[in-house]
Amino acid sequence: MNKKIVIALGGNALGNSPKDQLQLVKETARPLVELVKNGYELVITHGNGPQVGMINLATEIAHKSSANTPQIPFPECGAMSQGYIGYHLQQAIYEELKRNGVRKSVVSVVTQVVVDERDEAFQNPTKPIGKFYNKEEAKEIEKNSGYTFIEDAGRGYRRVVASPKPIRIVEIETIETLVKAGHIVIAVGGGGIPVIESENGLKGVDAVIDKDRSAAKLAADMNADRLIILTAVDKVAINFNKPNQKDLDEITINKLQEYIDENQFAKGSMLPKVEACMEFVKANQKGKAIIASLENASAAIKGETGTIIRA
Amino acid sequence: MNKKIVIALGGNALGNSPKDQLQLVKETARPLVELVKNGYELVITHGNGPQVGMINLATEIAHKSSANTPQIPFPECGAMSQGYIGYHLQQAIYEELKRNGVRKSVVSVVTQVVVDERDEAFQNPTKPIGKFYNKEEAKEIEKNSGYTFIEDAGRGYRRVVASPKPIRIVEIETIETLVKAGHIVIAVGGGGIPVIESENGLKGVDAVIDKDRSAAKLAADMNADRLIILTAVDKVAINFNKPNQKDLDEITINKLQEYIDENQFAKGSMLPKVEACMEFVKANQKGKAIIASLENASAAIKGETGTIIRA
Repeated sequence: MNKKIVIALGGNALGNSPKDQLQLVKETARPLVELVKNGYELVITHGNGPQVGMINLATEIAHKSSANTPQIPFPECGAMSQGYIGYHLQQAIYEELKRNGVRKSVVSVVTQVVVDERDEAFQNPTKPIGKFYNKEEAKEIEKNSGYTFIEDAGRGYRRVVASPKPIRIVEIETIETLVKAGHIVIAVGGGGIPVIESENGLKGVDAVIDKDRSAAKLAADMNADRLIILTAVDKVAINFNKPNQKDLDEITINKLQEYIDENQFAKGSMLPKVEACMEFVKANQKGKAIIASLENASAAIKGETGTIIRA
Repeated sequence: MNKKIVIALGGNALGNSPKDQLQLVKETARPLVELVKNGYELVITHGNGPQVGMINLATEIAHKSSANTPQIPFPECGAMSQGYIGYHLQQAIYEELKRNGVRKSVVSVVTQVVVDERDEAFQNPTKPIGKFYNKEEAKEIEKNSGYTFIEDAGRGYRRVVASPKPIRIVEIETIETLVKAGHIVIAVGGGGIPVIESENGLKGVDAVIDKDRSAAKLAADMNADRLIILTAVDKVAINFNKPNQKDLDEITINKLQEYIDENQFAKGSMLPKVEACMEFVKANQKGKAIIASLENASAAIKGETGTIIRA
């Protein structure tokens, strides 16, 4: 049995428009197929921040300007983004497999993830989505729509929605069936379509589940050998961007917790990635989590670069 | 081994807005789960005319009014519609399974279907998509966008795109793996995302593959026992809406061809359904195709209603 890897692709693996994305996914496919050639079974997850924001914005503009264009709720926008991103990714990976003479199927599955409606995240929305606005625009939309905006790292104002914890991946059995049968699976896109579960069934909810956290949940549920979070940097660092910056090679979750307590990792950036890795390793003590750059995915899994997080 | 059925859902099984659709899919789920309870393995396909039209229109309106909102090509709109419709369908079927105490997974897979770029359909677009316009609006858009419009059955003007033949379902192996493992699969939504295949890989193309034809291709490829095309009427009829209308119970493909030669079936309506059934039965002589109403799906498979088409 080949080793199972769950990969979380960051925003740099996709793009801000269909044209950009179609180009970027081709570059993304290369290191992924490299892993397949090295004998790994892949489940690929991805973010959807800019994409679901783009879809959400487009449907809102259209709804305002035309009575014939219905409002599209946020979870439905998320479902659309899974179809849209999944299509490009599976097309690019399919091609890269063919170019490499690898006989393997790749497919995207629409994935719902159950969240708890009592999750305190719903009281305190923090996840930025969509485009940047200036202060005046943000206040205007806030007034008209009831959305919440925050100032995002000096780059302008963005809408924020709740980012609740993933409780259960609804389609987990399907994903496992496909991986066992040797297919490459793209799933839990954008962290999954967030749904709450009640006696009346599943119901979509306005939220974005952190994709790295959902990837960790997926990796734990599947008992994966590795969780790889691919991002723009090669390694996790402490004292980031300071003269005494130190890149981390291999680190235990206990040591990482000390760094977290020292506020070493930026909220909404490296911190959720590090926490997701820790959650996976806690759930699967034999597993290892890796944070690395997309380009160096193959080298990272061989231990040549990246930051390895273990129990 | 349970009998394999490919089901094609018509537009009446979905809705024109997320709100409508969320309600309609609940009603759609009931007869489908009835079939599952009767021991059938289902692959569900569906149309996407109004839905991809809605997405296409919204993204165009938004792109025109905001430089920050990119143009979304038609195949990408189709991919979004697969995510959007698949999400609602799998949620509703999941719930209906649970209510009936049936332990089974249901999932949507993003599906590409290869078409031939030399297909003559590209010279003669016939498939209406999206909303109705009056003549003046249609001419205006035609002028600005290069789209083709036609007058649609007295109801107004609609954009038409090419409707090429499905050549190959790219994700067929994944669909078969899931069905063999006992999962309910939603696939080839909207007839599949149309792609052309060349040395440079797969590439999306502006087109809508007839969903019944893609369903027939899927049923033939999977060697399904039954292809069921669900629509608004209970049976196929000759002399339709005339005093001597005659509903058909069971009919051979040879007899059907005679009726086609008599122009008994309306183009763009019953004709493509009848032709899709004939294509499946020709490819799989032991299989039977059924055209029936959604409500009577269970009765139709028992031969109590619907029109059965056989070799």
